[in-house]
Amino acid sequence: MGDGATLGELRRRVADFVAKRNWEGYHNPKDLAIALAVEASELLELFQWRSVEQVEALLPEMKDSISEELADIFIYGLSLANALSIDLSEAILRKMERNEERFPVDRFKGRAYG
Amino acid sequence: MGDGATLGELRRRVADFVAKRNWEGYHNPKDLAIALAVEASELLELFQWRSVEQVEALLPEMKDSISEELADIFIYGLSLANALSIDLSEAILRKMERNEERFPVDRFKGRAYG
Amino acid sequence: MGDGATLGELRRRVADFVAKRNWEGYHNPKDLAIALAVEASELLELFQWRSVEQVEALLPEMKDSISEELADIFIYGLSLANALSIDLSEAILRKMERNEERFPVDRFKGRAYG
Amino acid sequence: MGDGATLGELRRRVADFVAKRNWEGYHNPKDLAIALAVEASELLELFQWRSVEQVEALLPEMKDSISEELADIFIYGLSLANALSIDLSEAILRKMERNEERFPVDRFKGRAYG
Repeated sequence: MGDGATLGELRRRVADFVAKRNWEGYHNPKDLAIALAVEASELLELFQWRSVEQVEALLPEMKDSISEELADIFIYGLSLANALSIDLSEAILRKMERNEERFPVDRFKGRAYG
Repeated sequence: MGDGATLGELRRRVADFVAKRNWEGYHNPKDLAIALAVEASELLELFQWRSVEQVEALLPEMKDSISEELADIFIYGLSLANALSIDLSEAILRKMERNEERFPVDRFKGRAYG
Repeated sequence: MGDGATLGELRRRVADFVAKRNWEGYHNPKDLAIALAVEASELLELFQWRSVEQVEALLPEMKDSISEELADIFIYGLSLANALSIDLSEAILRKMERNEERFPVDRFKGRAYG
Repeated sequence: MGDGATLGELRRRVADFVAKRNWEGYHNPKDLAIALAVEASELLELFQWRSVEQVEALLPEMKDSISEELADIFIYGLSLANALSIDLSEAILRKMERNEERFPVDRFKGRAYG
């Protein structure tokens, strides 16, 4: 069964990892934001010099690397939420509501720019 | 109660948002990787020209903006997982196991470089 | 006549700007690296959700914004070179030589991956 | 003497490198913007988990890696200027003038936020 884990469970796993290594000092918000940007770029690098069509064809062999880079992004994101006691589910759902208002279906159907 | 949502529930919300707007073409893996990098940099920008100590002092007023940028990162990350049918919980837990092996507590306690 | 300015002339202009505002403290290497990443993402954002073909069609109206973001990247790059007394011409030419060896014309003609 | 090369000379070297490999297709504006973001993050990664003070102490051994990543950024920036026939010197000087107006010395002396 896929993705049954709650964000809370994943956060505790990351918090435990950080606490056991006394890494709370490293995992300050500014350095976590740097880490997130670095990991997002490592994900982006997988697509460098490849057209959307080439990516499509290469996806089977790229999927594992993409999953791993995406996991890194989520792990640092969860750690930042831990460092600042952010309620992530709430933040995500609130942002989804704002996006739903900002991009009404009738104006944005099939278009990224309304 | 905080962060009781499962990744699966959040993914479905994002998938529904994308499907209703026929945005699956925009949300191809390469363009989602770009979106993730752009959002990660918007998060990073909040910390620009501010020392770790200044950030500490400014956190109360920064927390909402940080939460919002972090939500954007998660939303695009969930959409990428949707686009590629990645089991995120599994990818995150597998990466955490690898990190636990790679950074043994006795060698990395209090040190980012072993 | 285009681009007759030497890197040295541009560096002095940037150094003077920074010195007059006593910004050497802000312009430390780590924060300049953050600034470069943030500006590179602002450039990237201009291309978000646009295909290579759409970009091609939109270039006339995008050129000014691209030029401005690119200028920001160069300005921070010049400031980092100033902060560390890096000889940029030399670093660029050395890297070009390494690239020429690493990507021999006969193997890489028309291919990014040899 | 350092940095006597003009931007024009460096641009021609990069243009020649790209042309000899028939890489103009790869070096389209969108993919160059991706390359710039990836390189800027590789530079940023050198500073990851290191405080401003640690960076200061490590600079002698970091300088070569920083120079090399900075060179990569400039090379892709020059290639983007080539792809779009942007007059870089002009774009940089125009942006410096705008910065000088936007950050008047009397209000911003020693402060990044006026």
